[in-house]
Amino acid sequence: MEAAEPSGDINVVTDTTEEETPPREANHNCNHGSVPSSPAEESAEQSKDLPQTPQKPGSGTVVIQGNGNTASEKLQRVRKWSITTYKYTRQALSEKLGRGSRTVDLELEPRLELLRDDRQRYSNVTKLAQTLANQLAQFSVTQKTLGDAFTELSLKTPSLHVEFGANAAAQKFLSKSGETLVAAVNSFTLDMNTLINKTIEDTMINAKQYEAARIEYDAYRVDLEELNLGPRDTVTLPKLEQAQKDFQSQRERYQKIRDDLSVKVKLLEENKVKVLHNQLWLLHNAVGTHSLSCHNFLEQNIRQASEQLNNSGVDAPSWLEES
Amino acid sequence: MEAAEPSGDINVVTDTTEEETPPREANHNCNHGSVPSSPAEESAEQSKDLPQTPQKPGSGTVVIQGNGNTASEKLQRVRKWSITTYKYTRQALSEKLGRGSRTVDLELEPRLELLRDDRQRYSNVTKLAQTLANQLAQFSVTQKTLGDAFTELSLKTPSLHVEFGANAAAQKFLSKSGETLVAAVNSFTLDMNTLINKTIEDTMINAKQYEAARIEYDAYRVDLEELNLGPRDTVTLPKLEQAQKDFQSQRERYQKIRDDLSVKVKLLEENKVKVLHNQLWLLHNAVGTHSLSCHNFLEQNIRQASEQLNNSGVDAPSWLEES
Repeated sequence: MEAAEPSGDINVVTDTTEEETPPREANHNCNHGSVPSSPAEESAEQSKDLPQTPQKPGSGTVVIQGNGNTASEKLQRVRKWSITTYKYTRQALSEKLGRGSRTVDLELEPRLELLRDDRQRYSNVTKLAQTLANQLAQFSVTQKTLGDAFTELSLKTPSLHVEFGANAAAQKFLSKSGETLVAAVNSFTLDMNTLINKTIEDTMINAKQYEAARIEYDAYRVDLEELNLGPRDTVTLPKLEQAQKDFQSQRERYQKIRDDLSVKVKLLEENKVKVLHNQLWLLHNAVGTHSLSCHNFLEQNIRQASEQLNNSGVDAPSWLEES
Repeated sequence: MEAAEPSGDINVVTDTTEEETPPREANHNCNHGSVPSSPAEESAEQSKDLPQTPQKPGSGTVVIQGNGNTASEKLQRVRKWSITTYKYTRQALSEKLGRGSRTVDLELEPRLELLRDDRQRYSNVTKLAQTLANQLAQFSVTQKTLGDAFTELSLKTPSLHVEFGANAAAQKFLSKSGETLVAAVNSFTLDMNTLINKTIEDTMINAKQYEAARIEYDAYRVDLEELNLGPRDTVTLPKLEQAQKDFQSQRERYQKIRDDLSVKVKLLEENKVKVLHNQLWLLHNAVGTHSLSCHNFLEQNIRQASEQLNNSGVDAPSWLEES
């Protein structure tokens, strides 16, 4: 029953008579609101601008001039908004209840689903990295304190001066290097949070607006389909024409939002890979650098301590014999 | 006023007439009790063994046979114990109030003081090492979890397979190596706790016994000095002789305990240095080994990942262009 569409992967989930592909028009109404916006707010603002008779001293009453044209416009807006909201709610409800049909973009929606899943996973990894950084920071503090305790013992214990000293130097260096690693991991989590809470979130907001436009479009589509199934006479024909017009306008709006979102998701996917590629290498290198500097220091530290012990063993064996 | 003593550094803190050096005798009473032990417990036990008239059916009374000899001995013991306790308490009290004189061993007591200070410091270091091990254990768990999260992302993200994979491998290896280091630090704290709570504590108990013997000895010394200052006649001379005997017996006991403790402290000092030397090298080597293995792994890991990235860049540039 379904005809091929020029935009590719848009499908309606249930069996519906496929409407003709509408020609693209320039006057689509792209307001990106997730739910049709209420006209009440707008009219409330407008009423402030209505001409008022200045308050006469002592009279206590104010006469507000009626504005037939504005009131009619307002009524028109409220009516239109009510209809759209009603249609939107009915469509959303029937989708939730598993009734009715919905348009599914087989190309875009799996990518959005993947993006949501990715965001969840990145968020998880970022939280773990944050925990890691916090634990490492505490660990560094303990290492520093232990290093200081070893230093005191090194000064207080001539017979174990070298041994305590070597451990003091080791713990202090590890602590300092650990702090650098903490800063690197914190930088990783900061950039990951920007990716998750700014970059991806921005697209997710667009995805919500897209979903709202899709529901609105589906509501008008279902209306048109229902009218098409009914009899065609002089009463229904103008209604059908109007429904056809509304449908095309909604469809264009939906497709515009869909195309915008599709471009945005593609850009995000590229950007995401670039950002993550950099961040993951930075993280790995930070860990590697920490490990390298610790290894170099400890190797040198152990060599120095061994030499000192050998020297003291040759030059001053006194304390060994004293003890 | 003080004459040189054969045992060297024993000094009496206040001006006291120095008694003659007593000849060593074989019958010193080395009971190592920190306070003169009460005879009440012993006599209570003994009273169970006293012959009892078997209870006649219907009589309801028990006749306990008096034992003149045992009662006299008991009385004697109680008297002696009371006197010793009285002397001990009087001496301890007068020392606490800053009155009277006390014998100070200038060689042994600073070494005991040093030992107490060392024990305190070792205990502090051990607690810090324990904290370090606990923090490192938690850190390793987080690394493992982060590694698993990276592995999942590596499998789920073809475009960042290598980057996520490299970080997964890094975190997992660091976690495993960290666990080995935790075991090493735990072994360090275990052996340090043995040194502190068994080896040093054992000597500290002896030091307390030594202090008790010293107070008892000082009590008899002060008694003798007081009698020496008084008049000498037929009433006081036997008392003086008895005091002289008691003093010598106490002095020998004190010196025996002192000499035993001195040997024990010297052995402990040697043992302590050996144990700490080993433990400190084990700890440093554990840290060094951890660092070395992490460094080796990460270096290899980063090389492999770079090669994989270069290969995928040459052979399959598709995913880079797709994204």
